[in-house]
Amino acid sequence: MYVRVRVPATSANLGPGFDVAGLAVTLYNTFTFELLDEGLEILGCPEQFANKDNMTYQAFDEAAKEVGLDYKGVRIVTSGDVPYTRGLGSSSTCIVAGIVAAYAFKDRYEDRQDILELATKIEGHPDNVAPAIFGGMTVSVMEDHKVTTLSLPIKNDYRFVALIPPFTLSTAKARAVLPNTLERADAIKNVSHLALMVASLINGYDQGLKLGFKDRLHQPYRGKLIKNYFPIMDVLEKDEKILGAYLSGAGPTIMAMIKAEDDKGVVRIKEELGDLIEGWKVEKLELDTRGYVCDFL
Amino acid sequence: MYVRVRVPATSANLGPGFDVAGLAVTLYNTFTFELLDEGLEILGCPEQFANKDNMTYQAFDEAAKEVGLDYKGVRIVTSGDVPYTRGLGSSSTCIVAGIVAAYAFKDRYEDRQDILELATKIEGHPDNVAPAIFGGMTVSVMEDHKVTTLSLPIKNDYRFVALIPPFTLSTAKARAVLPNTLERADAIKNVSHLALMVASLINGYDQGLKLGFKDRLHQPYRGKLIKNYFPIMDVLEKDEKILGAYLSGAGPTIMAMIKAEDDKGVVRIKEELGDLIEGWKVEKLELDTRGYVCDFL
Repeated sequence: MYVRVRVPATSANLGPGFDVAGLAVTLYNTFTFELLDEGLEILGCPEQFANKDNMTYQAFDEAAKEVGLDYKGVRIVTSGDVPYTRGLGSSSTCIVAGIVAAYAFKDRYEDRQDILELATKIEGHPDNVAPAIFGGMTVSVMEDHKVTTLSLPIKNDYRFVALIPPFTLSTAKARAVLPNTLERADAIKNVSHLALMVASLINGYDQGLKLGFKDRLHQPYRGKLIKNYFPIMDVLEKDEKILGAYLSGAGPTIMAMIKAEDDKGVVRIKEELGDLIEGWKVEKLELDTRGYVCDFL
Repeated sequence: MYVRVRVPATSANLGPGFDVAGLAVTLYNTFTFELLDEGLEILGCPEQFANKDNMTYQAFDEAAKEVGLDYKGVRIVTSGDVPYTRGLGSSSTCIVAGIVAAYAFKDRYEDRQDILELATKIEGHPDNVAPAIFGGMTVSVMEDHKVTTLSLPIKNDYRFVALIPPFTLSTAKARAVLPNTLERADAIKNVSHLALMVASLINGYDQGLKLGFKDRLHQPYRGKLIKNYFPIMDVLEKDEKILGAYLSGAGPTIMAMIKAEDDKGVVRIKEELGDLIEGWKVEKLELDTRGYVCDFL
């Protein structure tokens, strides 16, 4: 018997929702797990990751202890399309998959709140694992090691154009660039933009999103670490059919949100950006509303 | 013919939603307007306000110009229960009433967006006038002199216990005490609490509200200007039936939110607070969901 877990890519730090708001998109990593009589086999990933330090295996092993799964060996086969270290939650897909698989061997793969808590403990924050687990758009807050995740009922008639650079940006570097203090006016702007973003998404008030997505807490600082970030954002700002644009996670991927009916959106965005995104990958994604999916084969 | 306008009290700066989130409550001021052949008569308010500088009259006069109402004189009769300079939007009730009345004489009293824009212009910010106009819980953002207000679909099974001190706190003083810079960590907390508050209200997730209502942008500073503020908040924090508590507007009124079913809530809160609120007025309010009401008599 195999357990197969499919986990969506995620986009955290949604606009002004630094450290709190995120969403899942239709780009997936899939992992299959088979219990063995002994040993560890990891297939489908670069050789340097095919060992005991592998993130998926580590999460599986920790979850096995938590859930009381006594196993001797495991084979993990990894495949998928979520790019690595690009701000799309690839490491969260590994952690969530490992945990879900261990829970699945004990028939508990639908215990999403327990899985969220363990995933947050392993990852250190709920930003990406929460939408990877629940799907849709989520709000997650951690307080005293307890994580609360709530879903926001937003429409699924949006599309997300992910502009994925050919270079990476480490989360550590992206964290180091953030200042320790900021202007009160900037904090107030973020608070009001976040309220506007959430209220606009819930009310389907598309005109409110461009302002609502604006952030002053991390994008102005991290943008400097990303080649062409500011000119790209200027172009996206001027495109009236783009509802909003933001840095995905800690970057460097930039997300632009359009309507489903804007079916020429990707072509137009590529034309408008031209050389600014030379070598970048452009993916048109939808909101994933299911979170991880687990089945037995 | 008289025009009668009833306007609800409002509670702005809702929890972490400084400058953006507010709600209307079931405490009202009522104003009647009658056009005269000449002169200005203002009744029902202290004599020092019964002149051309009267806020209601000023708003009426400005709105009359805007809407093309040619009048020679007006009688304004004021009555109501909204306390003055307590953080419950009493001046907004005057401004909104004056504008609505002028619009009503031109049969345009339902032009709420136009009325919002003029009221925001006169008041300087939309925090209180927006919920006074639309009712319920609102999110309002001003950008380039344009104001956007959206309603949030929250349940009406909450009750608000207003703790109204016998002393006032001027908005100017309450503004002056706010620092110009703050820790990034505090800004992030406000952003995540706001997201939690809104998501909890929308999902009816009452357990999320106590943390969700916490603010670090203005309450820690303004609290120092209000006698017994911190011990009162400590008591409210410990009462498990209180969903959340916050400073209303710029204060000094403190609002505690409870469930409708908690019908002994007010009695319990009074007992718990005891001497801390000696001389304070305690009002049990509901969410007003209509905003202003205008009729002809």
